[in-house]
Amino acid sequence: MPDLAPRVAVIGGGQLARMMAEPAAALGIPLRLLAEAEGVSAAQVVPDQLVGHHTDLDALRAVTDGAAVVTFDHEHVPPEHLRALEADGVAVRPGPGALVHAQDKAVMRERLSALGVPCPRNAVVGSVEDVAAFGTPCVLKTTRGGYDGKGVWFVDTPEEAAEALAAADPGRSIRILAEERVDFRRELSAIVARSPSGQAAAYPVVATTQRDGICHEVVAPAPDLDADLAAQAQSIALSLARELDVTGILAVELFETDDGRVLVNELAMRPHNTGHWSQDGAITSQFENHLRAVLDLPLGAPHARETWTVMVNILGGPEPEVGRLYDGYPHAMARDPRLKVHLYGKELRPGRKVGHVNAYGDDLDDCLERARHAAAWFRGDLGNESE
Amino acid sequence: MPDLAPRVAVIGGGQLARMMAEPAAALGIPLRLLAEAEGVSAAQVVPDQLVGHHTDLDALRAVTDGAAVVTFDHEHVPPEHLRALEADGVAVRPGPGALVHAQDKAVMRERLSALGVPCPRNAVVGSVEDVAAFGTPCVLKTTRGGYDGKGVWFVDTPEEAAEALAAADPGRSIRILAEERVDFRRELSAIVARSPSGQAAAYPVVATTQRDGICHEVVAPAPDLDADLAAQAQSIALSLARELDVTGILAVELFETDDGRVLVNELAMRPHNTGHWSQDGAITSQFENHLRAVLDLPLGAPHARETWTVMVNILGGPEPEVGRLYDGYPHAMARDPRLKVHLYGKELRPGRKVGHVNAYGDDLDDCLERARHAAAWFRGDLGNESE
Repeated sequence: MPDLAPRVAVIGGGQLARMMAEPAAALGIPLRLLAEAEGVSAAQVVPDQLVGHHTDLDALRAVTDGAAVVTFDHEHVPPEHLRALEADGVAVRPGPGALVHAQDKAVMRERLSALGVPCPRNAVVGSVEDVAAFGTPCVLKTTRGGYDGKGVWFVDTPEEAAEALAAADPGRSIRILAEERVDFRRELSAIVARSPSGQAAAYPVVATTQRDGICHEVVAPAPDLDADLAAQAQSIALSLARELDVTGILAVELFETDDGRVLVNELAMRPHNTGHWSQDGAITSQFENHLRAVLDLPLGAPHARETWTVMVNILGGPEPEVGRLYDGYPHAMARDPRLKVHLYGKELRPGRKVGHVNAYGDDLDDCLERARHAAAWFRGDLGNESE
Repeated sequence: MPDLAPRVAVIGGGQLARMMAEPAAALGIPLRLLAEAEGVSAAQVVPDQLVGHHTDLDALRAVTDGAAVVTFDHEHVPPEHLRALEADGVAVRPGPGALVHAQDKAVMRERLSALGVPCPRNAVVGSVEDVAAFGTPCVLKTTRGGYDGKGVWFVDTPEEAAEALAAADPGRSIRILAEERVDFRRELSAIVARSPSGQAAAYPVVATTQRDGICHEVVAPAPDLDADLAAQAQSIALSLARELDVTGILAVELFETDDGRVLVNELAMRPHNTGHWSQDGAITSQFENHLRAVLDLPLGAPHARETWTVMVNILGGPEPEVGRLYDGYPHAMARDPRLKVHLYGKELRPGRKVGHVNAYGDDLDDCLERARHAAAWFRGDLGNESE
């Protein structure tokens, strides 16, 4: 049977691609997946799939052949491949000119500074002397390829900087960025969807909690956030989406400083962990709006449906064998019939994101308790005879 | 990779199976589909699939091999095949002893009468004389195989009955049921989910509007429904689920009579068109609760999240070529950013259900206007320059 709607090619078979498949099914949009291996998370739920690597241009060409648009589960496709696909006539969304700002932190910092967007003080460093000149304590980051706390070092002294530089960049092929350590009150995230036509939709600004550099908990909207600061965070995200010509979801992670400012920490150009609350807590989820945006369809309302929505990630603990996923359903579902569980079809491993839970309602403490309890239960932090 | 959760085999590749795939993906539950042909609605979104017919026991055995449980997109699997699968050790949910009441209207009426459940007056008829003795006007129904208004005749005279009997049952292999024509104020639907352990969850009672025997519009909850009558409708559905040992979703379609009673019209044992509002309007959709029920997991809360949710079906009009599906998105989505669209991956044909829309909010008239406008737009009843 011929496709009844434009086909969307998705590069990468992780949980973000998996969660795009739900609204794609609802909207009748056919997906074609490039999965890094058989049976990976998204490959379990997208029938039309090829197995291949995102650095293989032939595989990218095979999966985008006949697709109206190509989008991504991650930001790791080499820019030269994206430009080759564009030269082939494929609509790449977000395009390589936008995506580089999510791929290279030095490029991102340079551009944001030029745009006057508030950022932590930063400089590209090539040596311990550079770091000493920048000043310690500071944060060192690989400009490319870092994620979930990998490729980030908190250094207090030039000696620690030397160790980090040696670990980070033995071949000197990747640049290192030094950034000031910001005294922040908390971390925020501002997510927007933007279409090629220029329509944009801003989600409520959320508060995020990281553990070991990995997103752990999100509260939507950010409690007690000053209205002006919330507007400023949304405005930064909207103007960055426009200035960088982002199509699809843009997530802007921010520091809320002790002295009442917001500074941009990181950018991501795909559905983002800090937006998973929207699956159950917003009128239109970030996954649906990502698809609508890359297809240049009008965007869905991004507003919260509930007073509070709390998302807590399910991660493998240090002893994954004490965790439980499907086997944890009887307790988790009976204890909380309003809980929304999202599992990614992944086995528990230490530190691996394997799912998340959303709890919504009018009482924030109740939502926090429900979501935290469930996530801890799945992770195995609670005993087998939990309340 | 081995399955991380019990596999659910689903017989039939229609839109109900397709819509089960969304919560299955979220909950990490692997589905295996028996599709009647390649590329049918559910086959577009379920990778693990076999093509075969639901009357082919070998195909049923192949698709249930290794599955924890088998469930259904429709009620047409022959009871002897279901018993054969049970004999093989497969958990058939709902089981053949329950399902026969959704497969055979005469068996259903007999059992409901024995249980004291209020029904329209009815009798099995074998001849025009039987119909005349029953009394006209009446409704004649084939006891098996009817759906969406097919296999139903409204007859005013014995002469019309003779025509209907000839059309209905040329080979006399299917029994015919005569039922009184009920003077009803409106039609209602009471949906419950029930698990093998005996847990049950009752959705709010909804008001349904049929056109030509096909569900056209649903309002959840039924406006101005007397609380006692709503409780009675839910109680009938819950007691039928228990007495018939239903597992999964049971939909009970009812007449609300002019004199303030409810009478059972039809039963369905699968997610039902009158429950599609729950995808966007309830805490747990009927599709998620169907999966949870057949897996004997604790059920999710069935309560409405919104004051009102309106569902309107998208059907192919008499001239399907004037309709539009994906091509209708720009107008429908821009006009109503809160609209939720569900398409089934089916081409428009006259009278065919190809999707539905849900609109929710605090103002019923607004929800009705939004959902009706969108459905009419997709169907092609509005011009190309609609407001």
